Order: sequence, then structure tokens, then C-alpha cells
Amino acid sequence: MFSKVLIANRGEIACRVIRTCKKMGINTVAIYSEADHDAPHVKQADEAYLVGGPRVADSYLNVDTIMRIAKESKVEAVHPGYGLLSENELFARRCEQEGLSFIGPTPDVILAMGDKIEARGLMIKAGVPVVPGILHELKNADEAIEVAEKIGYPIMLKASAGGGGIGMQFVTSNEEMRKAFEGNQKRAHSFFGNGAMYIEKFIENPRHIEIQILADSYGNIVHLWERECSIQRRNQKVIEEAPSLFLNDETRLQIGETAVKAAKSLGYRNAGTIEFLVDANQHFYFLEMNTRIQVEHPVTEEITGIDIVEEQIKIAAGMCLSFSQKEVKREGHALEVRIYAEDPVTFYPSPGKLTSLVIPDGDGIRHELAVHHSSTVTPYYDPLIAKLIVKGKNREEAISKMKEALDRYKITGIKTNIPMLQNVLLHEKFRKGETTTSFVKNYLQE
Amino acid sequence: MFSKVLIANRGEIACRVIRTCKKMGINTVAIYSEADHDAPHVKQADEAYLVGGPRVADSYLNVDTIMRIAKESKVEAVHPGYGLLSENELFARRCEQEGLSFIGPTPDVILAMGDKIEARGLMIKAGVPVVPGILHELKNADEAIEVAEKIGYPIMLKASAGGGGIGMQFVTSNEEMRKAFEGNQKRAHSFFGNGAMYIEKFIENPRHIEIQILADSYGNIVHLWERECSIQRRNQKVIEEAPSLFLNDETRLQIGETAVKAAKSLGYRNAGTIEFLVDANQHFYFLEMNTRIQVEHPVTEEITGIDIVEEQIKIAAGMCLSFSQKEVKREGHALEVRIYAEDPVTFYPSPGKLTSLVIPDGDGIRHELAVHHSSTVTPYYDPLIAKLIVKGKNREEAISKMKEALDRYKITGIKTNIPMLQNVLLHEKFRKGETTTSFVKNYLQE
Repeated sequence: MFSKVLIANRGEIACRVIRTCKKMGINTVAIYSEADHDAPHVKQADEAYLVGGPRVADSYLNVDTIMRIAKESKVEAVHPGYGLLSENELFARRCEQEGLSFIGPTPDVILAMGDKIEARGLMIKAGVPVVPGILHELKNADEAIEVAEKIGYPIMLKASAGGGGIGMQFVTSNEEMRKAFEGNQKRAHSFFGNGAMYIEKFIENPRHIEIQILADSYGNIVHLWERECSIQRRNQKVIEEAPSLFLNDETRLQIGETAVKAAKSLGYRNAGTIEFLVDANQHFYFLEMNTRIQVEHPVTEEITGIDIVEEQIKIAAGMCLSFSQKEVKREGHALEVRIYAEDPVTFYPSPGKLTSLVIPDGDGIRHELAVHHSSTVTPYYDPLIAKLIVKGKNREEAISKMKEALDRYKITGIKTNIPMLQNVLLHEKFRKGETTTSFVKNYLQE
Repeated sequence: MFSKVLIANRGEIACRVIRTCKKMGINTVAIYSEADHDAPHVKQADEAYLVGGPRVADSYLNVDTIMRIAKESKVEAVHPGYGLLSENELFARRCEQEGLSFIGPTPDVILAMGDKIEARGLMIKAGVPVVPGILHELKNADEAIEVAEKIGYPIMLKASAGGGGIGMQFVTSNEEMRKAFEGNQKRAHSFFGNGAMYIEKFIENPRHIEIQILADSYGNIVHLWERECSIQRRNQKVIEEAPSLFLNDETRLQIGETAVKAAKSLGYRNAGTIEFLVDANQHFYFLEMNTRIQVEHPVTEEITGIDIVEEQIKIAAGMCLSFSQKEVKREGHALEVRIYAEDPVTFYPSPGKLTSLVIPDGDGIRHELAVHHSSTVTPYYDPLIAKLIVKGKNREEAISKMKEALDRYKITGIKTNIPMLQNVLLHEKFRKGETTTSFVKNYLQE
């Protein structure tokens, strides 16, 4: 096992990884930007080093400095967390070149899954159902219109290098397509340095359902069941849960097996998530694969009892999976809400200094905090300040616990989305499990 | 099911009960003393009423006022928590007389188990092993000496009405017995209004192991396995865990079955705990029965997944137990520490105003708080300010998580026993599970 690991991240996920390292007796090295000198992850790690200015390009994406610190502090492995460098194939490769274990998949798989068009092609080859659409990069708006007419509107226009909703647009006609194509191509180019666009059939009111998988270096692959992440605003997840109320048991088994098949076809290693869209008839379609730990991993941990970060580290250290598919239990119901420093009405980030933070106590209540009680939320990073995860015997109990815990959650000094989360939890459609990806758009703005 | 419940208690256990009520959709009524107007349980309940001055006799033991509030606020049931009125048979009877459900056992059983001599006699009749000793009240020191010589020193001298270590003394000779008898008789008389004394053989370096039971009103009784509570200081538990590392599986089954047998013989109803001393050869002896929820109930909840407060309420509402003994699982390892406002060296209470409270986040970390971040800990009540409960896959992981969580626990403004708890967790004997009830005395003061 490693004796020292560098966490190339910040916020709650850096703290999360540090915690599991401590439990495993592994020393931890944190990195931080000038804006984060007072951040929780800096205090919690055994060592912490400044990597640069507040902008991510100067600090958390500053590969040369991170590598220098990794060498100087004599770590044996690097955990990339999510976001930042976690799906950067060059960073993973650089770690390998420097003799460090990258706690994640191989660079080749990261590269392949990062390219949405290539990923789609590989899935088709592996026999995994994908959303009807085209495989190659579209040359221009004319070609986009031609293909869209074949598949039939409505259509989703997507950036091949996209993520987090950037470079994505819903299109209902040739006229809209012409406008959308050029705008999104430009945007994708400036955000990702890659303007490649492709289109997919728009699945009406789909569920967003994803399968967590774990794979060791010896070909053993298991899935840890599904997460339902349909409650999104602006294509960003807000509430996640496991299991999904919507999936029937037959589909649940099928989708899990399909995810394992997909991972096997890639020779996948470490933790990963395969995201699917599921339509009203329980047909599922591959959406994308995330080759890293996800924000919403705790709901899976709660129902299976498996520490996913621990498994990631063990796999990277060359250990075999210590359990089989049959041994992966699924018990109770877990919900996670993402608490953002943002205006609950406009959804704009709300940076500022916290004047107090009081988190609720109780059984089945888990916190993952990116802040302490007097943190300053800066405008430089994602405004996720905390995750609140609850577990109940069933969905009804979990919702009731979450509602009650949010009532006791007190953050002052900045605005948060807690009022919005409470509205969702109280909504009759949410309570009935009638949640689709357009839930927030359709019902919250009623 | 009840629609409204009064919680006749304060501190963390009042908050704990309120939380489960909310989850079950039951409205809650809190009571509070003048010293507790700002306490968490007052804010968390749907309604809260002042019952009197800061001294418990004027407020939390003020039965007439509590009954008046119960009637005026139209509750259907009363949860007594632990301590205070929870094992007061007259209070349980009064509730019944006023047409309120007492969430606990029948007054007769409370009375019988409250009298340690009577309890002992009932257990002998039921075939439950008890510590060698005498059954009747000792007339005077001469009789005590006579009996002690028959059983053999060392001896524990105990007050029949005692509890929490008051009126208890370890005696090794006739000379010590003569001195101890009168002093403790007086003390018991002034504390409990009852000076009856009895003696028991002193079991050397015993484990304190207790069995949680649940019994409905229809004769169905299950046990929820054991808790090991050997880490005590001044006969008060400080660290509790489940399961016990010390018990072998055969004893574990036997002691559980014995507890169920004991409860059956009493016609027991609701939650209760049967405490045993276990010697080095795994022989176990009935110590006492607590006819209420216990401080350390969360460790059992964590390994079984059962909400004990919820079961208490359901049983009191006349519902059947919804699971059988076979369905009670036992999974992972849970630890609880009691965080007291006290000097870590002298163990004296340390009242005062908190200037900050920062509780650690993370998976498998549960908080039960009696304070908020600016609470004043008054000298009127038990100085328990919080419980920290962790769950791990095994004992080693649980200890490591607890250690790490305590490192991140920050309370300023008052002294706490956290340094002492950390010392215990680091102690090699504790890590090996070599914990007996004299652990704190023997090793901490090294």
C-alpha cells in the first residue's frame, strides 16, 4: 500500500480523499492556491503546499508545479478527485512518466471517453445501446440540418469535448439548428480548444441514470448499482439518489450488466461511471462515461456500504477487488443534495464570507463540507460548498429526514440554494418519484 | 399512530426523540427550564413550554406542570428520554391515569427493576445468573461483615436504590466494610430517600456488557445484540461499542437469549437494556436492568440499522414488532464517545459559554448534539454536551475514524474530555480490545 498520496484537488472532494487516506494510514499531501490558504483541505492534510495564484490555470491545473511538489514530498500516488485534472489524459500520463501511480484509469481510456464521439463509437462496437444520432464530426450547419432531418427533431446539438452542459443545445427546427450550430461551435472552441460538434436524437423527459463501476487491474469488474440524478438545473445535478424509484428490477439488472460489459470492452481500471438516459419505456441509452470519482458517489456508498475512494486507492496500489458482484448489497435509500453558494432564484453564484455555519446532527445524516464556519467563498471555483447525504429505510423516510435536516441547516453571510432544495423536496411530483431531467425547469419555476 | 408527543427531557436525547418524531410525521412538544430557554431541543420542537426554574426539581421533575402542559397541548403520549423521570414509576403511572401513553414499560416493571434487590431476586427466579451476593437488605455493618466473610472479599457494597455509581463502594476487608457501610447508607438516604444496602462479590476486571431488547405488547421480544461499555470513569460510561471484541460467538448467542428470557419473565414491554458483568472466562452475571432508552443506544442502531426510538414509539402506539430475531442483522463496528464539558484531568464539570463548535464531517460519522455553537453549559445538568458515533467495516477502521474525527472536533470556551478520549483511543490496550471496567483508572493515570 502507498505510504503517501498527493491530492490534486480542493474543496469537499480533497477533504473526502484525505479522510479515507487517514483511515488507511496513508499520509496526505494537499496543494492549494493563494485563494485557498485557509481552506479545510489545507488544514486536514499532513502537508500542504502552495501551487500558485487563485485562478485554476495558475494553481490546480499547474501540472509542472504539482509534479515538482509530488516529487519533493516523495508521494507514491496522486488522487485527482473530480473536475480539474481528473479527466486530463496528459496529466495521468505525466504521473506515470514520473513514476507516480495515478489513482484512476489509464490515459488511453481517459482520452477515448473524453471524446464523446469516440466514446459513442466504442459503445456501439461493444453492443451498448446509444441514443440515435451521428458518429462523425459535423462539418457545418448544412450537414447538421441534413442529419437532423433524417433522425427527426427535437435534436440535441453537442460539443464533442463538452461537459457540464457547455456547448449543448436543444434544437427543434432547421432554422434553430443553423443559429445554434455556429454559436455552440465557437463556444466549444473557446472553452475546450475543440469545436467539433455532433447531434443526437432528443429523448423526451428522460431519466438520468448512471451506474457506478469498480474494476481492478486483473479484469475483475463489478457495478455498485445505479444512481438517479434526474434533478438538474442547467444540466448540473442538484439532487441525486440511490436506488432509482423509476427503474424496474429487470431494467436495473440489465443496465448494471450493460455497464459492466461496456467497462470490460474498454479494459477499464479503477472507479468509473457510465451515464445513461432512460426513456418512459425503460429503454436506456449510453450518454457518456466519467472516468473518475463523481460528486454523487456518497449515495452509492450509503446503500452498498463500500468506500469507493478506498477501493480506488487499493486498485491503484495493484490490489484485487475483495468482493464479487453477488456480495454487493443494496440496502435502504440514500439522497444527496448539493448546497451551492448561489442565489436560489437566479442561480448565480453568491461569493462572500460565511458568518456562521451550523450543520444538523442525527442518525443517517452525512456531511461533506468544502467550507468551515468562517470560510470565504471566492469567485474562482465551483460554488459547491457542501453536500448533505441522508440515508433512510426507504425513499419516503430519506426525503423526510432530508427535509428536516435542511430545516436545521444554517448558513449565514452568503446566499445558498437551500430554499430551492426545500421546494423540490416538498414538491408532490418529487415525492412521487416523477422526476425527469426537466423537473427543475418545468416545476420549480411554476 | 400518535399525532403529537411530549418529550419530558432535555439535551441531546430530547433532540434525538424530536428527530424521529419528525421523520414519522408526529408533532412534538418540548419542555424547558429557565436555564434552557436557548437550548437546541426548544428550537427543534414544534411547540415548547417553560416548566420552571433551572433546578431539575423545579422543572424537568415537576410532574404537575408537565402533566398540565401535556393536557393543554393535547399530546397523546410522553417520551421520558433517559435519566430525569424516565425510571420514575409514579410518573409512568400518572401518565396512564391522565390517559396518556407512556413511551416505556409498565409502572410495575419500572418499580421492580428500580429496586436492585428485587430485580436480583426476580432474575434468580427466571434462571438468569447473578453475581454471588445476598438478596435481602442488610440491617447494619455487622451483618454486612458476616455476609462478606461468607462470600469472600473483595466485595461491592451497593445502595438498593442506587445508580450512576452513587452509594457504591469497593471493599476489601472487615475494617473497610465497617467504615463504608455507614457512609454509603447515609449518602444513599440523602440521594434516593432510601438507605437500603446490599453486597455482591466483586468480579475482578470484568467487562460491562449489555443487551438491548425490544418487546411489543403482544409478547414478541427480540434482542439487538450487545454493547460493550467497559470504558468507564467513576462508574460512568465514556466509550461504548458494538459488537464486543471480547465475547465469543457462543457467549454472544447465550447472553442474548438470556436477556430475552429475562425480559419475557417480567412481561416486559418497550425498549430496555439488561446489563451484565462478564468475567475473563466468559461467565456473565446480571447486573441491572435499565427500563428506558440508553445514552449509548446509537451504537446498536448503527450495526443493526434499527431506529430504536421509532420502535419505542410504535410499541407504545400498540403496534407489533415488524421483525423477528432472525431479521436483526449485525454489520460493521460502531463506537460512541461521550463528550463532556469537564476538565480532562480532574474530571470536574467545566460549565461556561461555548465560543465555537465545529463538528467533523464525513461518512460513517454521526453526531448527537446537546449544544449549539454559542450555547452556555450551565452547572444545573449533566455535562454531556455531545455524542460522537462512528461506524467502520471493523473495529480497527472505527477506531481510526474516531481518532481522526476527534482530531477535527473543535470546541472552544469550555474544557472538554476530548484529550482524555484521544488518549484512550491511542492506548495499545484499547486498540487490542483489552478493556475492562478499570481501564481508565489503571491506564489513563499511568
